[in-house]
Amino acid sequence: MTDKIYNIALLGAGRIGQVHAANIAAHPLSRLSTVVDPQEGIARQLAEAYGASVRSLEDALSSSDIDAIVIASATSTHADLIERGIRAGKAVFCEKPVDLSISRVNATLEAIKGQENRLFVAFNRRFDPAVAELKRRLDAGVIGDLELVTVVSKDPGALPIDYIKVSGGMFRDMTIHDFDMARFILGEEPVRVTALASTLTDPAIKAEGDIDTASVTLQTASGKIAVITNSRRASFGYDQRVEAHGSLGTLRTENVPKTMLVQEREDGVTREKPLFFFLERYAESYAEEWKEFVRVLKGEVAPAPSGEDGRKALLLAEAAYQSLETGRTIAL
Amino acid sequence: MTDKIYNIALLGAGRIGQVHAANIAAHPLSRLSTVVDPQEGIARQLAEAYGASVRSLEDALSSSDIDAIVIASATSTHADLIERGIRAGKAVFCEKPVDLSISRVNATLEAIKGQENRLFVAFNRRFDPAVAELKRRLDAGVIGDLELVTVVSKDPGALPIDYIKVSGGMFRDMTIHDFDMARFILGEEPVRVTALASTLTDPAIKAEGDIDTASVTLQTASGKIAVITNSRRASFGYDQRVEAHGSLGTLRTENVPKTMLVQEREDGVTREKPLFFFLERYAESYAEEWKEFVRVLKGEVAPAPSGEDGRKALLLAEAAYQSLETGRTIAL
Amino acid sequence: MTDKIYNIALLGAGRIGQVHAANIAAHPLSRLSTVVDPQEGIARQLAEAYGASVRSLEDALSSSDIDAIVIASATSTHADLIERGIRAGKAVFCEKPVDLSISRVNATLEAIKGQENRLFVAFNRRFDPAVAELKRRLDAGVIGDLELVTVVSKDPGALPIDYIKVSGGMFRDMTIHDFDMARFILGEEPVRVTALASTLTDPAIKAEGDIDTASVTLQTASGKIAVITNSRRASFGYDQRVEAHGSLGTLRTENVPKTMLVQEREDGVTREKPLFFFLERYAESYAEEWKEFVRVLKGEVAPAPSGEDGRKALLLAEAAYQSLETGRTIAL
Amino acid sequence: MTDKIYNIALLGAGRIGQVHAANIAAHPLSRLSTVVDPQEGIARQLAEAYGASVRSLEDALSSSDIDAIVIASATSTHADLIERGIRAGKAVFCEKPVDLSISRVNATLEAIKGQENRLFVAFNRRFDPAVAELKRRLDAGVIGDLELVTVVSKDPGALPIDYIKVSGGMFRDMTIHDFDMARFILGEEPVRVTALASTLTDPAIKAEGDIDTASVTLQTASGKIAVITNSRRASFGYDQRVEAHGSLGTLRTENVPKTMLVQEREDGVTREKPLFFFLERYAESYAEEWKEFVRVLKGEVAPAPSGEDGRKALLLAEAAYQSLETGRTIAL
Repeated sequence: MTDKIYNIALLGAGRIGQVHAANIAAHPLSRLSTVVDPQEGIARQLAEAYGASVRSLEDALSSSDIDAIVIASATSTHADLIERGIRAGKAVFCEKPVDLSISRVNATLEAIKGQENRLFVAFNRRFDPAVAELKRRLDAGVIGDLELVTVVSKDPGALPIDYIKVSGGMFRDMTIHDFDMARFILGEEPVRVTALASTLTDPAIKAEGDIDTASVTLQTASGKIAVITNSRRASFGYDQRVEAHGSLGTLRTENVPKTMLVQEREDGVTREKPLFFFLERYAESYAEEWKEFVRVLKGEVAPAPSGEDGRKALLLAEAAYQSLETGRTIAL
Repeated sequence: MTDKIYNIALLGAGRIGQVHAANIAAHPLSRLSTVVDPQEGIARQLAEAYGASVRSLEDALSSSDIDAIVIASATSTHADLIERGIRAGKAVFCEKPVDLSISRVNATLEAIKGQENRLFVAFNRRFDPAVAELKRRLDAGVIGDLELVTVVSKDPGALPIDYIKVSGGMFRDMTIHDFDMARFILGEEPVRVTALASTLTDPAIKAEGDIDTASVTLQTASGKIAVITNSRRASFGYDQRVEAHGSLGTLRTENVPKTMLVQEREDGVTREKPLFFFLERYAESYAEEWKEFVRVLKGEVAPAPSGEDGRKALLLAEAAYQSLETGRTIAL
Repeated sequence: MTDKIYNIALLGAGRIGQVHAANIAAHPLSRLSTVVDPQEGIARQLAEAYGASVRSLEDALSSSDIDAIVIASATSTHADLIERGIRAGKAVFCEKPVDLSISRVNATLEAIKGQENRLFVAFNRRFDPAVAELKRRLDAGVIGDLELVTVVSKDPGALPIDYIKVSGGMFRDMTIHDFDMARFILGEEPVRVTALASTLTDPAIKAEGDIDTASVTLQTASGKIAVITNSRRASFGYDQRVEAHGSLGTLRTENVPKTMLVQEREDGVTREKPLFFFLERYAESYAEEWKEFVRVLKGEVAPAPSGEDGRKALLLAEAAYQSLETGRTIAL
Repeated sequence: MTDKIYNIALLGAGRIGQVHAANIAAHPLSRLSTVVDPQEGIARQLAEAYGASVRSLEDALSSSDIDAIVIASATSTHADLIERGIRAGKAVFCEKPVDLSISRVNATLEAIKGQENRLFVAFNRRFDPAVAELKRRLDAGVIGDLELVTVVSKDPGALPIDYIKVSGGMFRDMTIHDFDMARFILGEEPVRVTALASTLTDPAIKAEGDIDTASVTLQTASGKIAVITNSRRASFGYDQRVEAHGSLGTLRTENVPKTMLVQEREDGVTREKPLFFFLERYAESYAEEWKEFVRVLKGEVAPAPSGEDGRKALLLAEAAYQSLETGRTIAL
């Protein structure tokens, strides 16, 4: 008997959609069946590369041969598409975030109540091989009891101000990944949040009322502490490090250099810079994430990260903003 | 014409006093002239090793051939000895801290008003060669405008509970070094402080009402942020890292391994652990610190760190405790 | 106008053939058209995965819609297939080596005289991203005049003795890659070769009269020196390092760890082992190598490595054996 | 009962003599008693710094209160001073080499026959903490059976041609350290030697008939192989690495950076260069070497390296030259 091959409809044929398309095609148990995108040109191009068809959203959702949808469209469409996908009986893989508004997220999770086990929210960094191995060893007791988590997360450079304007603010757009990472590593819910933030890299960001440099500290009921430091700009590349400190030692991930070349000259011993672009840096994590989603489709595991994980990360972002505004440590 | 040789009286012949004795003797412009210690045996032993004499405190302070005193006695004696040394016309090198009580520190600084340029407070870590080089490059603009400072500072292991009892609490005893480091790297005074802390490593510490795991975040008026993370226990050694992130890049110090040996086997690629004990890890910093103090004696530079630096670090410790107690970000 | 898509016939559907199939499919300008393999089952399976057809060798060579053949079959078939492919007017991508016998290699190169620009010999390691970047910088003068090349090349573990028996001996089977690497980095032909070798890892290898541990030193007419060290067994993984030392400094490639995870405990600071298996370690090099071959197909570059490169590497292997046998430095 | 303090006469108050003087003084069981140097000024200066006296060679040798002499004078005086020191009943610590001429070395060892246990030949690199730990682990079986040793040894830069002229040639002057290192790590005598060498860094060296770039390969009777690569110039610092490969893994020493500072910018991730000057790079090894000599004085251990070790290293240098001249692998 052969394994079932899952037919996938991809909603959104942009940059991240193309990454998912390649991983769907490369997986022996999934097939890119349909591409949906209002921009017909890019939809057609992507579909042709993988022998898929182009359909309307309605067709894709009503078609009985589609097992799952991948939501890779604009953030503002996510919540609605989740609800429609679940209603149509599909499994749903949704790019983060569910929505920038916590009330909308709550409404969506309410709307799909009882069907949560079909919603996977794509916090891809959990699937980075180094992070996954860190978590595996942590859970195996390699460093004893966890005490302190550090997440360093710096973007490689200034984003276009038009992006900033619709981003929902740094905590909801960028730190959201780090909130998920902190929760993932902590293995416990934070109950206290305090934050300090500044706008230092670009006056245009300040003009939008947004921040670009921050530290957020979380504490769980048992006393575990997680510290997130962020900047919108690390001139040398994508600075992405996670560190878990426990009673028996530390596990930490270092940045991934472009190659393992070392240059030794009078001006120093120079290694290659970290991979710069998130699609390059996290390429493996997207492939691993897709493998996990196929396991969800096969019913082998419950979806993780789940919709609830998406909601909890956003709640931490809300709390961090509240701490900035009130000058208080926020209790959750 | 030959350079003047400075005669030094060392007050306190214990562990740290012995480190200073060796550095005093090794410097071509300083001579260990006198050792003062209530425990006559260890005073005599140390004095003999360096051809110094053993004297009473009174003799040492009143003797005209002593140029400077080094205060390496118990913390509770520091403030008094500073005042007496300055009154006696000596230059004073004082181990951190000036005192555990901010009012006592204020009183001492008041008492020596006008003579501050004879008081050097020994925050030795500023003189660690890697830290000093980091600071030099930072000041030279190598990473542009400073935005974010990270200080990781973890002790190699549990301290005796009797030490904890008289330590003044982790922020005043251990984090004090990190507050000084943050101020040193920031080059600006913090105006906001927020902290979260736990007691995770030892119930005996909890019983004393002390903490052992913490994160403190500082922010300056211009928006620079500094994050300190502490633990009383890093099982693998003394975890001491400083990171400065600026508009053009990052400067960071890594832990110092025992040797540069690498072992590659089926069980992994293993390097040596960081140097474990602070006297070993910071040996070079103590020697460099002494060289700086000799420059102070020669009148080439003003004392830095100064008494005021000692006071400011303690104020940050006070603010951190206040943040813990009130659940607020404290404004300074 | 759209670019021409090259139709490729893959000869050999085994382990390395499968790697090439994936890279052929992933390249926008090449298409896996045909798979040829005497074992019909694996041929069919591979063909289906990429929408290719299964054909006989004769059909593939006589078919006018095939632009190039990829020879990934047993070593003993390479020379014959090169000759037939070139005669049939195809471009030829041939796995190393051309043949284990230098006279056979000479005969083949003679047979295809005038058509050499259609033969590409797949020394994949030249295309490893770190090696390629090393070479690019070397050629750009980053380390001045090249003086000394070091190639460390150790297999991760004992090979089956049945493989050893038909391997042609370590210098022809394994060191052949390092001879090519040395020539590639040196940019000059070696004129002197000296070697010492032992059999230390496995008595079965000794029984076959083969070696498993060796050092070969090469020298060019201008005095540049290259040193190759080999072992059939590095228990910790695939040990593959290249170092170029010049008048202005050094460029060197370090092993590629599985992930960038670091574990710090009382038992040391442990990183992940180097990637173990050559298909994993050199995955990127195979993809880059295929891109280069497509450039050859497009007529943008001459094939490099060429058939002559294959011959020269084998000549160095012959000289190394001669040095072992005679106890002399061999002049070329 | 207190330990005996050994009185030391230092012959030669130059650069390396000053290093030994400091280590003698710092050791609790040795005392710098006498300095002998034809240049009275530097003798007096050094003696004063350590409370020693200045004497003539004859006085020092005939004085009953001198336990050991340290020969740190010009190479050409070593053999004679060893003979005179041993005859005078002193223990002798002699800087490498015993002599540049193998016949002179043989004569000296003949002359002191029966007294070899009072002669220590100072191949300091054995005492480098990383090398010593490598050897300790190797002997403890951490990497199983030793198979392959690699010694990379490159001077930080061109030496004055006047030094080259009297150096005895690179193999006798510089590689001599690496021959000793290879023997030390191998733990077996090499029985075969092959070498290739060039002169690439400086035409003046060529004019003297000397070499500056070389590879020497050694093989023991059991088949262990050691490879030495040398250059007189590594523009980035003192390149000193040792690697031992065995059946269970590898132990290797990396270069020692000035500090553990890392700079990450758009132009790369740059660490500090290796320590440049041998006195700085090997400072710890000189101190450890002295501790070993004191153990020899106490009769706890036999001298190692011994006079015979000095002779064997020179024999390997002779063999390497012979290999260059004859184009043969030399059997020992």
